[in-house]
Amino acid sequence: MKVWLPAGFRFSWTRAGIKPSGKPDLALALAAEGTAAAAVFTRNQAAAAPVLVGRGHLSACRGRLRAVLVNSGNANAGTGKAGVQAAEACCAALAERLGVSPSAVLPSSTGIIGVPLPEEKILSALPALAAGLAEGEAALRGFGKAIMTTDIRPKSAFAGFKVRGRTVSVAGVVKGAGMIHPNMATMLCYLFTDAAACTEELGAHLKAAVDLSFNAMSVDGDTSTNDTVVLLASGRSGVVLSDPGARRPFVAALRAVCKSLAEQIVRDGEGAEHLVRLRIKGAKTLAEARAVGRQIANSPLVKTAWAGCDPNWGRMFAMLGNTGYPFDPAQASLFIGRHRVFAKGRALAFDRKAAHKLMQGPEYAVCVDLGRGKAALEFLACDLTHEYIRINAEYST
Amino acid sequence: MKVWLPAGFRFSWTRAGIKPSGKPDLALALAAEGTAAAAVFTRNQAAAAPVLVGRGHLSACRGRLRAVLVNSGNANAGTGKAGVQAAEACCAALAERLGVSPSAVLPSSTGIIGVPLPEEKILSALPALAAGLAEGEAALRGFGKAIMTTDIRPKSAFAGFKVRGRTVSVAGVVKGAGMIHPNMATMLCYLFTDAAACTEELGAHLKAAVDLSFNAMSVDGDTSTNDTVVLLASGRSGVVLSDPGARRPFVAALRAVCKSLAEQIVRDGEGAEHLVRLRIKGAKTLAEARAVGRQIANSPLVKTAWAGCDPNWGRMFAMLGNTGYPFDPAQASLFIGRHRVFAKGRALAFDRKAAHKLMQGPEYAVCVDLGRGKAALEFLACDLTHEYIRINAEYST
Repeated sequence: MKVWLPAGFRFSWTRAGIKPSGKPDLALALAAEGTAAAAVFTRNQAAAAPVLVGRGHLSACRGRLRAVLVNSGNANAGTGKAGVQAAEACCAALAERLGVSPSAVLPSSTGIIGVPLPEEKILSALPALAAGLAEGEAALRGFGKAIMTTDIRPKSAFAGFKVRGRTVSVAGVVKGAGMIHPNMATMLCYLFTDAAACTEELGAHLKAAVDLSFNAMSVDGDTSTNDTVVLLASGRSGVVLSDPGARRPFVAALRAVCKSLAEQIVRDGEGAEHLVRLRIKGAKTLAEARAVGRQIANSPLVKTAWAGCDPNWGRMFAMLGNTGYPFDPAQASLFIGRHRVFAKGRALAFDRKAAHKLMQGPEYAVCVDLGRGKAALEFLACDLTHEYIRINAEYST
Repeated sequence: MKVWLPAGFRFSWTRAGIKPSGKPDLALALAAEGTAAAAVFTRNQAAAAPVLVGRGHLSACRGRLRAVLVNSGNANAGTGKAGVQAAEACCAALAERLGVSPSAVLPSSTGIIGVPLPEEKILSALPALAAGLAEGEAALRGFGKAIMTTDIRPKSAFAGFKVRGRTVSVAGVVKGAGMIHPNMATMLCYLFTDAAACTEELGAHLKAAVDLSFNAMSVDGDTSTNDTVVLLASGRSGVVLSDPGARRPFVAALRAVCKSLAEQIVRDGEGAEHLVRLRIKGAKTLAEARAVGRQIANSPLVKTAWAGCDPNWGRMFAMLGNTGYPFDPAQASLFIGRHRVFAKGRALAFDRKAAHKLMQGPEYAVCVDLGRGKAALEFLACDLTHEYIRINAEYST
């Protein structure tokens, strides 16, 4: 993948000693003055302290974020008022050092729930963190590594385009999560661009991109206490998003980056052996298509059939009636790869051996046509394997 | 458990050759004239043919059911109009043989989805089935065995009481389901009593009992295409439920039978090693308590922690914010057995070794106090183990 680096950002990382392993666990992104930002946070009502603080800061600074401070190894969740105070203290200390407003700092945390945030360790590490700030690919990748918890691989994606001789870049890093790395089931994603835009525009584009990527993949069916996606736009490309010639390629670039990061999340699991692309079509709305994808992707019955490469489509079929939306078997079709297994209310004869072989591959598509409307969505899912149980049932205390 | 046998019922079973194993796969219960009935069916919109037919028959006969015809080995689901016709044909043939109205026969099926019902095999077996009708415990238990699919043990429960010198009995058999036997994730339950009641009364009591038992246990989070619970009341005890002295003990007996059957379902899993009683209290409504129980019980993250006997309560805590109901950590408490691990927004120190040891037992309680109201519910859950994956990922075709 070609690397597109947006201008106007510097990155840093360090070892604060939060992780017992001694691996990098503190990361910083500093954005140029004038940067606009938007974010999507977890809808979990037990939201972690950094989410509560981050929502407040984003509102207080009116979307003019200057820095993102991320620690891994501790989620600062289930920690009550003390957790909020600790997150505020870290932001304030960093803001003073960087010469920005405390509310211009967005905090994020990922790791174990219910353990107090080691605030002193973070405060002690801030001087080295600020001193290490640098531009460029290596710095961005260092940031991406320091936010990892049980991820096997760091995950990044890039896209860009030219408009009237100027180049706009979009870069993203993500850690997580869900079905794949459920010990610390948090997804944190940071997106950087040098397009110029207001907070409202960024928010609308971000929400649409998240709905088609991170909200269209299986993450245990659970929403973590810490999930956060942030988009920062430095404006340093000189290209304004309100320009219609820039808006369309920007939306495409942002979606491509988010979709790639979502795929990397689903693929990067010790437990996951198959990436299944659930192509839901014929829904009346995107929300309906997403509900169907989620119902299939979160069924242990379906996920174990995938693990066994078993074209036992009845398990998927049974899920279609449980979404809360109307479902008419007589209008529906189901395909495993190119094999049509069900259509218009009836099972069809198909080559089970060929379907089994197809399902042994690392990646394949299952297509559901609901026959109700024109909305379509690709939902990313994975299988449920012994390795998943091994990782998650290990006694951790 | 003491066996209470309601008067007014005869049972039979046979081998129709639907199951490749040659095990019993066809069962019949015949109720005395004047029997009233009520049922609860799956809410899955891809409901199987026998559910569609059963709903229609129950309505057409105005709750005056006379017979229940159950086959195992084939779900008659995903089979379209042909499936409905096959179910109707089996009911009609049985009705003629028994001298009852076709609409007085309720059909049930459980087994593989998407394979045509072998109607001829069932029709051929009806004479032997009808000839074998008998009263008594052995006949009832034979019925209970013939409806099994992947169940390890047949499941039955009994309760009864005396009122003014007369004895009322409630007996139930169940097969299934869900997390535990997900190859054929259908739950079928038949409840028999010799109390006298009208269909409306039975329906109200049945719904309440189901909400506290089968709707308060983990069955993969999925609703099968075939789930059915039927209650038949022969009236042969001479005790009328509209008598206030009979109603209360009847409700208790019905709930005890349903609760016992639900527990047997959760316990009877090759995969399940721990029965976890989720005692949800402090909810505003029963629906809220049930939603909280379901959210915890269906989380792969939580279920694998239970499999590892791991008192990592953060996984359960994180689920509390995802139910769709308001949640305030500052009002909530969480216990593992007698160990209080979280209260009023903060983690508490507790004896992790003792909690780990407790969780190694075959059964224990987790108590969640939401601090919002007075509704309470016990939700039955189990863990997610390697054995579950093994059973369900085996290539079946």
